[in-house]
Order: sequence, then C-alpha cells, then structure tokens
Amino acid sequence: MKTLRGLKLSRLRPWQVPQLTPIEQQFVDRHDVRTDLAFEAHQVASQAGQHALPGVTTQVEDLGFAQVTRIHIETDLGAAAMGKAKGRYVTIQAPGLKRRDRTLEQQVSEVLASEIEQYLKRWQIGPDQPVLVVGLGNWNATPDNVGPLTVSKLLVTRHLYEYQALNEEILGKMRPLAALSPGVLGLTGVETAEIVQGVVERVRPALVICVDALASMSVERIGTTIQVADAGISPGSGVGNTRRGLNRETLGVPVLAMGVPTVIYATTIVSEAVDQLLTSIAAPIYPLDAESRRNLIREVLGESMGTLVVTPKEVDVMVESISDILADGLNEALHPGISAQEAAAIR
Amino acid sequence: MKTLRGLKLSRLRPWQVPQLTPIEQQFVDRHDVRTDLAFEAHQVASQAGQHALPGVTTQVEDLGFAQVTRIHIETDLGAAAMGKAKGRYVTIQAPGLKRRDRTLEQQVSEVLASEIEQYLKRWQIGPDQPVLVVGLGNWNATPDNVGPLTVSKLLVTRHLYEYQALNEEILGKMRPLAALSPGVLGLTGVETAEIVQGVVERVRPALVICVDALASMSVERIGTTIQVADAGISPGSGVGNTRRGLNRETLGVPVLAMGVPTVIYATTIVSEAVDQLLTSIAAPIYPLDAESRRNLIREVLGESMGTLVVTPKEVDVMVESISDILADGLNEALHPGISAQEAAAIR
Amino acid sequence: MKTLRGLKLSRLRPWQVPQLTPIEQQFVDRHDVRTDLAFEAHQVASQAGQHALPGVTTQVEDLGFAQVTRIHIETDLGAAAMGKAKGRYVTIQAPGLKRRDRTLEQQVSEVLASEIEQYLKRWQIGPDQPVLVVGLGNWNATPDNVGPLTVSKLLVTRHLYEYQALNEEILGKMRPLAALSPGVLGLTGVETAEIVQGVVERVRPALVICVDALASMSVERIGTTIQVADAGISPGSGVGNTRRGLNRETLGVPVLAMGVPTVIYATTIVSEAVDQLLTSIAAPIYPLDAESRRNLIREVLGESMGTLVVTPKEVDVMVESISDILADGLNEALHPGISAQEAAAIR
Amino acid sequence: MKTLRGLKLSRLRPWQVPQLTPIEQQFVDRHDVRTDLAFEAHQVASQAGQHALPGVTTQVEDLGFAQVTRIHIETDLGAAAMGKAKGRYVTIQAPGLKRRDRTLEQQVSEVLASEIEQYLKRWQIGPDQPVLVVGLGNWNATPDNVGPLTVSKLLVTRHLYEYQALNEEILGKMRPLAALSPGVLGLTGVETAEIVQGVVERVRPALVICVDALASMSVERIGTTIQVADAGISPGSGVGNTRRGLNRETLGVPVLAMGVPTVIYATTIVSEAVDQLLTSIAAPIYPLDAESRRNLIREVLGESMGTLVVTPKEVDVMVESISDILADGLNEALHPGISAQEAAAIR
Repeated sequence: MKTLRGLKLSRLRPWQVPQLTPIEQQFVDRHDVRTDLAFEAHQVASQAGQHALPGVTTQVEDLGFAQVTRIHIETDLGAAAMGKAKGRYVTIQAPGLKRRDRTLEQQVSEVLASEIEQYLKRWQIGPDQPVLVVGLGNWNATPDNVGPLTVSKLLVTRHLYEYQALNEEILGKMRPLAALSPGVLGLTGVETAEIVQGVVERVRPALVICVDALASMSVERIGTTIQVADAGISPGSGVGNTRRGLNRETLGVPVLAMGVPTVIYATTIVSEAVDQLLTSIAAPIYPLDAESRRNLIREVLGESMGTLVVTPKEVDVMVESISDILADGLNEALHPGISAQEAAAIR
Repeated sequence: MKTLRGLKLSRLRPWQVPQLTPIEQQFVDRHDVRTDLAFEAHQVASQAGQHALPGVTTQVEDLGFAQVTRIHIETDLGAAAMGKAKGRYVTIQAPGLKRRDRTLEQQVSEVLASEIEQYLKRWQIGPDQPVLVVGLGNWNATPDNVGPLTVSKLLVTRHLYEYQALNEEILGKMRPLAALSPGVLGLTGVETAEIVQGVVERVRPALVICVDALASMSVERIGTTIQVADAGISPGSGVGNTRRGLNRETLGVPVLAMGVPTVIYATTIVSEAVDQLLTSIAAPIYPLDAESRRNLIREVLGESMGTLVVTPKEVDVMVESISDILADGLNEALHPGISAQEAAAIR
Repeated sequence: MKTLRGLKLSRLRPWQVPQLTPIEQQFVDRHDVRTDLAFEAHQVASQAGQHALPGVTTQVEDLGFAQVTRIHIETDLGAAAMGKAKGRYVTIQAPGLKRRDRTLEQQVSEVLASEIEQYLKRWQIGPDQPVLVVGLGNWNATPDNVGPLTVSKLLVTRHLYEYQALNEEILGKMRPLAALSPGVLGLTGVETAEIVQGVVERVRPALVICVDALASMSVERIGTTIQVADAGISPGSGVGNTRRGLNRETLGVPVLAMGVPTVIYATTIVSEAVDQLLTSIAAPIYPLDAESRRNLIREVLGESMGTLVVTPKEVDVMVESISDILADGLNEALHPGISAQEAAAIR
Repeated sequence: MKTLRGLKLSRLRPWQVPQLTPIEQQFVDRHDVRTDLAFEAHQVASQAGQHALPGVTTQVEDLGFAQVTRIHIETDLGAAAMGKAKGRYVTIQAPGLKRRDRTLEQQVSEVLASEIEQYLKRWQIGPDQPVLVVGLGNWNATPDNVGPLTVSKLLVTRHLYEYQALNEEILGKMRPLAALSPGVLGLTGVETAEIVQGVVERVRPALVICVDALASMSVERIGTTIQVADAGISPGSGVGNTRRGLNRETLGVPVLAMGVPTVIYATTIVSEAVDQLLTSIAAPIYPLDAESRRNLIREVLGESMGTLVVTPKEVDVMVESISDILADGLNEALHPGISAQEAAAIR
C-alpha cells in the first residue's frame, strides 16, 4: 500500500477498522466491550454465568493442562444475546502457553486436531476430500500475521494429487490440501472474500478453513486461547453488504474459522479500567451513562481510538509459537495418516 | 511447502521445471537454447539477423541510453520459427543498468511507461477502467521475487473507488488498480492460473498485467533488459493442458506480460561454452550431434541440470533495483494523473 | 530465540521489560507515567508549562507544518525533575504525518537533517569524519523495527573509502558511513551495548547515532513526533549496571539518539483513563493514593502489565513511512554533497 | 546498501567477488577450478586419489546413509598442494538429502553434532564454557542466507547466565551460547571480521563457530554436503591484508567453520564443460593452453563471470532444510543436556 503526495490516505481507510455486523454492533452498544471470542461474549452476556442465555448451551471439559468450552448458539435469540452468529464455538484455554512449554504446546495441538476432526465428522467430510486453508491478516504487521504464518507451515499436497506424482501408499496418508494467504484489502485493493470466493470456485474444496488473529477482552487470553467455530467470519462486513462474509452462504461449502487472540482493543482496556474504578470508588453515587463513558474513552484515546490495539512487546515470539500449534493441529487433523509426532516434525 | 518423513518430495516436483509449450519445445530441440526473451529467440532463429523470418517484423529504436526493439509475430509460421506465441514483443535494453545509475533507472521507467501506454491505447482501455497486476514467482527465492516485489511497490487504489472514499479531483488522477501475488504452486497447491482466473471473474478488470522474472541466454541481459508482450504467458503449461495459461482465452481480457531476466539456465551456459569451443578448435572435423551434445551437458550438470540456474551473487540488489523500475513504470502508466517524478516518490 | 521443553522461558525474560535508570524510576514513581519523550516529561513535570523547571530551558519554534521544541537540561536538578539525563533534546512534532502526506514527509526530513547538522557543528565533526549509525530494536516485531528499517535505507559508504574505490569528486560528496542493526538481547544473548562498544573500538567513528522506536504517553504523538538528543540511551540499564548504556562515557565518542514513538505503555493509557475519570467525577471526594491506583491498573492489565503496549493496527504502514523520513534526514545530513531531493531518490 | 544518482556502484564492488588468499589463488591458477570444500580440492590435487599428497592424511568412514571424510593437512607443503590452510577438515556427504527425507536429515544432524563434539574435546572446551556462533552471509540473497538462517534457529542462552535467571538444574543442561549475524560488507560498510573481533573482545567466548554458505565444484554436492573445519576462514581476505581473517590468530580463540555448498561458480561449470568436451573429442590434437581456456570462459560468461553462480531454482526450500540440519547439530552438540530429539523440537 503506497501513499501519494498530498493525499490524506489515513482518513480514507475506514476499512482498516473492521466493521461490525448489526448483531455485533448491538452487543457492543449494550455491553461496551468488543471481543472475537464467543467464550468472552458469553461471560459478559450471562454476567459470568449468573444468568442462563436462552438458545445457548455450554459445556465445559477440564483436561488439566487446558479447559475446553463448547458453546452452541442454537437460536436467533441466543445469537442476539451473544452478539455472535449461530453456530458451534469451541474454546481451548491453556494459560500455561504463556510459559512457552513445548510439551504443553504439543498437547494443545493434539486437542485442537481432535476438535477439528469432530467438525469434519459432523460435516461427513471424508479423508480424501480436498480442503482449502486461508490465512487471513496482514503479514507486514506482526500481531496480524497468525494466519499467513500458520499457512506457511502446512503440508500442502493438492498439486501432488493433480499431477499424480505420488504412489498410492503415500497418497493414502494425506488429503489434497491447498493453502492461500490473500493479503489484506490495503495491499491488494480486493476484498479478501472476493479472492477466496474466486479461488473456491476453481479449487472446489469440500471445506474452507480460515485462520486469523483475534481480539480478546482479557490480557490473560492473549496467546493462550484457541477458538474454532463453524459460524463463518465477516472481515469488514457491514450493514447491507453481506457478500463480503466468508461463510457457507457465500462460499457454498462449510467454513471453519480458527484463531488465537493476539490483541485487545485499547477501548476495551480503558473501558475495563473505568468499570473497575467506578466499582472501587462506590460508583453508584456517580453513575456514568453510556454517552459520558464513551466520551471519556475518546478523550483518553483520541480520534484514532478504534484502531488502537494492546499487544505484548514480545509479540513476535508469541505469534511464532501460536502458528506452530495451529499448523501442527491442522496437519495432524487434515492428513489422516500423519501422527501427532510426524505433524510436529514436518512443520 | 513442507516435507514429510521418508517422502522423496524432490522427485515429486516436476512442476518446478517450467514445462514448455509444444512450440517452445520444438525451438529448444532445434536450437538447443532456452530463453524467455523474444529478442533472443529472434537472434537465434534469424542467425543474428542474417535471415529474415517470414511472418515476423522487427523495428529497432535507439534512444542512446537504451535500445527498444519491437518484434511483431504475425503468423503461425513466424511463431513456429521463433518458438513464441503470436503477438507484439517489446524489448528495452539498457546495458547501463548494470551500473545502478539512478538517473538511467528513471529514464528507463519512463520508456517502459510509454510502451505500456501504447498497449493500453491499442486495446482502447480508458483511464478509469480497472486493471489487475499479478506478481508471479516465489517470494522466498530472491531471483524469482521480481513479480511479488514489484507488486508491493504499486499504488493500489481499487478499494478507494469501491468505498467511494476519495473526492472527485483525486479520483480523476488515478485508475482503480488491484494487485496480487498468488505464490507458486509448491506454496499453495493451486495452479497460479486457477487463482488468477478466480480473482479475475470477481474483480472483472479491463486488463491483467503479469510481472515475472525471466530467463535469458546471455549474461549481458541479466538485470538490464525489460520485455513487455501481449502474447500471454504459460507458467507450467504443457501439452494438452491449455487451461493453465494466462492469456486472453483463459482470462477473457487482454493480458500484458512484463518481465526482466534474472537467471540463465545452466544448460544454456554450458551449451554456449560447447559452441564457442567447437568454433575455436575448428569443430567441423569433430561434429557433435544433438544427442552427444545433450549427453555432454548432462554429464557436467548431472540429473538436476534442468533446474539449475545461473545468477549474479548480488542478485538481491539487482532484484530490488529492477522492481523499482517496473513499479515506477506501472504507477506512471496506469495512473493517468501521476507524473514520472510522483511515481518515483510514491514507491 | 528458541524455547525449550518445559522451560518457563517467559518468566525468565525480565530483560524484555526495559529497566529504568534511578532517575527515570523516580519520575515514574512521582508522576505515574512513562515516556521516552523529553517533551512529554517536561509537560508533566511543569504541569503543562504552569511551573518553570530550574535548570531546564525550553525554546519553541513554529514552522507551520511542524513545531520544533528544544529542551536543554543543564543541571542535575533539572535532570531529576524531568526524569531524564542532562543534555539537549529536540522534538519535531508534525501531527499532519498521520495523513501520510508525502510533501510533508519531505519537509520534516529536511528539518530533521538541519537539526542533526546543528549537533555535528556543535561537536565540530567535519564532513569527512566517519559516522556509525546503529539501528536498535527487534526486526521481528513491527513496532520495534524502526531502527533496523531505517538503517537498511542508508547510503552506507565506509567500505568505499577503505578500498579507495571511488574517485575524489564523488568521495567529496559523501562521508564514510557505517551502519549496523545488532538485534535485541533475546536474539543474540549479548547486550546491545557490548556489541556496539566492540564495533566502535574497531571502526573508530567520530560519532555514533542510535535510531530506536520510542514510547510516548499520548496517542497523538505516535508516528508524528521525532526526538533527537545528545544524552545517550540506556537500553535495559539498571541500578549499578552502567556499562550497558550507549553514551559518551561508554563509547568514548559523542552519541546522538534519534527515535519516533510507535507505542504507548498500556499502563500509561489506563493511568490516564483513571485521571480523566477522577477529574470528571469530582475525584477530590474519593482520592486515590498511589498504591490503590497501581493495584487498579494491575487488576485491569494482569501480571504482564509492564510488557503490554498500545499501537495502531496499521503499524506496518506507519513504521515504513517513519523510517523513510529518518533515513532521508540522515542521508542528507551526513553526506554533505547530497541534496534533499537526492536523499529521497537514493532511499 | 543504497545507490546514488550517477554513481557506477557496481564497478565499485570488488569486495563482492570474494578475494582469494595467495595459497588459494595458486590452486586456482594451477587447476582452474574453485571450491570451498577440502574434499574436492583433494580430489583435484590427487587426481581423484591416484597420487598421495605429502603432508595430507585422509580417512573415510562409510555410515551407509552418509560418508564422512576426514582430511588432515599437516604441513605447508600439503597446504600448498591443496590450496587450503593447514587444519582438520571433515566432510559429511549424504546425497540422499536431495530427497528431503526428514529421517535422514535427523541422522545427518546427529553425525554433525558428534563431529562438533570431537573438536570441542580436542580443544578441551568444557560444557559450561561460552560459545559464540556467527552467521556469515547476506540475508537478502537466498543462496547466501545459510548462516543467518541457522543462527536464527539456535537456542541462545548466554543472557540467561548473565542474569542468573535460571535454576541450577536447567543451567546444567545448557551452555552459555551467543549468536550474531553481522551482515555483509555492502550492508554495513564494516568488514565482518572487524565486527566479530569487536564482539569477541567483549563476549570472550571459548570458541567461535562460523556458519556460511559455500561454493562447490559439483552439482551433486549442492545441499547434500556439510564441511566442518578448524582452519579458520577468510571472507574477502587478500594479499597483505590478514587482519580480515576469522581464525585463531585474529580472534585469539579457536575458530570452527561450518558450511554447506549452495552454489557453484559459473566459471567452474563452464570449465568442466570444456574439459569434458576436450576429452570426448580427443583433445590432445587440439590442446588448449590456460590462457586460451580462460579467454573462452570469459567469452561465454562476459565481464561479470567472477560473480556469476549456479544454484538450484528451488534454493529456498534447500536453504531452509540445510539450516534445520545445521541448527539441530549445533543445538545438540553445544548444549550438553539436550538430546537429539529435543534439539529438533526447539528449533
């Protein structure tokens, strides 16, 4: 993305602030927080589990080294309450990943592989059907590089099948796998969804898996939480512009979205600070209406508040490690004859 | 592109040896050299200009700092003689580019812009019609990175038009420009042509411009010669597999191919050495038939002879400088209100 | 930096939280904010200019497109008040840089060149004396890549003098310039200062210029403010460990430090939010002592609070543009025969 | 390395053609080939083993998957015959590496580790003594990126010891390891040897290990051969300029040089072609003196012949795989408590 003498290009980049769907916007308006994690949205909407949400079922599994939460949003009511589209969201939380423990990383990638396999089974996608993995995000900005980096670590095989270049024994261990990192709108001038739609029409995979960097509400979940969901994703989607979503409707095949939070919106951090402070100083006496609250946040963050993110200084090490876990999980789940150990070796 | 325990993947990569079209293969068989430059093919086929080629017209313009050669292959006979598809090939040769002379680089990029504008005029593509530039090649291998690097230096604007984000005055200076570097087959598992076809169907540009690294026959032309042609290109195209070409037939819109040679096939170098030696030692007494000659080359280069390329050690500096020139030429030619000086400033 | 099975390496990285000098720590304790900009420290310490600071003189020049502030900390008392070492700090603030205006970028780089030239004159460093530029920071993390990226755009010439490879006319236009990006401690295992000291002893430059990414207190100054100072810098310097500073004492030659803020510490953002809120809700009734305040910030940011930074999502575009400005300014100021226009052309 | 308007910088880069030491130059003059591998020099000088070389002992070990050759140049006479400095050269040849067989890669890295350990034992370097690894070469040019890429995969630990950040159990498994990729002269303006000398004086390691890309004479050895030697290396060293070598004399500590050939000089390829042709056509009748031969090569390769290299098209995949093997071998050999399996996992 190059710049031009005298052009005020920064004002011209509304698309760099990911737009929200109506359902997401309502959630933000109501709760004043913004998260890509269904787990967090559920925490907020249910007031940390105090209230049941109609049309939403949750199930928690504790593995010791990690906690797996499965949230199923079954009705429109549930979707509205959560600010998320209907679908199945799996969250793998492993706080220990902060310690860069290689053994734990392998355990988590195996859990991830197993969850991906559940989705494949549910969609009845056989071991020889082709899959396309799409790495979303901007490879030039470290916190946004999770998708492209993961894609670069996959065992891409689709061309081997096209060219009949392998013997049957080896072919039986693998699935035709294609992978693409289309780049962000500012780099290509083309909507990500348009590029993916075009490629899907040609490649005709049985499944599209999107890998992306996410935003969380909580520092603790940065780099330690993986979300897998079948609800599709909407990069930059806005009112009346549904053609841009990456989901079953737009692509014609099931879409699995995977991601790990690498940033928190600065507005979320400030908003949380305000909450904590109000609580600690007996805020009821000085209630803050939504409008005043937003003005306060704007004063702290300035006009650019929407595009500011909070991220760890060592984000490069974190993103490298995350993409190892995601790639191992994908290689193991997608190539049926490849063991967890082999998955780690081929990365 | 990852590897797998025990897989002999290198044997499995026939696609990494760019396959030739039948017409190209015949040329190689006849002349024992391989070049992407029409200028060189013409030199060979016409025995350095001693024989006129039927169905081929050439025109040479000397600009002092550069020589522009326009070769028009008008008939199938001409195409067969040249080993190139029918079309108009422009070669800009500026041996001084070796010296990394910034003034000369700017002069050459202006000549390039002017040649691109000729093609636009011939196709009657107006200043407000959208164009898609495709950067071919592997960004992980320096000599093959000309296309992706050039694309990264373009003033991408298509999304500004889609979002109506600019005022009319500025819009009038620019054209909707999209740009994409799809990556090579080994990275994606998908034919480049398939990806481009899919995107073209979505973006519907009036013209596709492909930028690629080329192979030359001569050391002198490495990094000093630009070719622009309207004949399309066939990355990895083979017999009976025409869907893989990037040309008007497959994409439905005109295709302009641009490139600069960064390598020489090692077979060409050795072959040339053999020729020179045979000449210098009065070879007629010991003629070498085509078969013996190919055996000799195979002995020197081993089994991998087809994939060995000759390139300068300082290839990184050369590729950086080449992509500057190509990007300047493209930015100037495609954005009507942008001067040569501005083109250099925005890179 | 690789990780090891079972090692809790993240806990082992105290060095990734840049340690403060005693004087800096006192400032943080007193004012609860952290900034690398003398301009901001002065704003805080003088309560936005309401109080004069003893031993500190300031001078403001308004250029229309930019405001240049020169702060001279002349005494230890002034240094203590400011939380900065004694020395001359120049701040160039150009809020318009947010708009990516190429003309403005060139104007700012000329102002920068002129300020650098003032320092050269003050130190009586002649146009033929060698200079070493050091790019500090981690090239793997976009917000920290300002130094290495700037260094990669410099016209490095020292080896041309060593090899007597140029004629006298050209030599007269340039200065022997060396440049180095040593990488961060986590990548090399060696203190940056140790590497620079070793190289300085060999190269024996008349001046060392360090380029680094900085932290600001204010969103408005991210990417829009350049600081140049002669006070040296202390990457990771702590109590009793003065050998690690990059300054005249440790290197034996003058040190000029240049930088642009690309991040804000998350603690600063939250702290500012607290202030604004307390002000807006008549805080005097509910005063918050320093301890409670810090606890509040810790609750919001968690244990990792010290290493969390706030940065714009489009940080890659910003860092690219910043490094252009810094490199242009350095190339113009350091190579006497090179005009501003040429400086931009050679980048 | 940037360029300047009107400067003929390419002519100004004699340093980009690695200069030869006198002993190397004599070898090239005598045999007309150029190689960094002692194994190949020995083949040439001994006429494929037909003649014993005085002062040179060789030992060959066949491991099935690889062949290890140990050449010991003990006298000046031997050094002169070989065109290499006195010392112990180990060559590990594993032609199967071409197939990218992950199991074989691990076997080879274990052999490498064992050979490195032999050198450590000979120098009596204990398991807790610090080591500095230097990645030589230009990270911007893929075939020259072996050293920097290997260094980026090492388990760097020296800072953990400096900061006493680890418990004793873990410290006992590792050695203080520092690593540095100084960049080439054209990027820094400083001789690599000067930078390394400066850092060695500060870091005071017990051993310096240099990792570099090498040149071979034979296509078969590209990417399939590892050389380890204790004779030091001389990047750009020339007559009367010994300060630039990286060896025990200049650095004051033992130097181990490791490398893998990624290129062949184009002159070598052409020279070999000439030889083969002359043999095949009964050359005795038309003998070619050294002068004519060199003229012939120059005619084929042009003026730039010295800097042209032959390399595989898929050089990016090869360099990635080579650096995995080298890094695994180094991590295993240098960190005493780290097994081969762990070495692969931490990369």
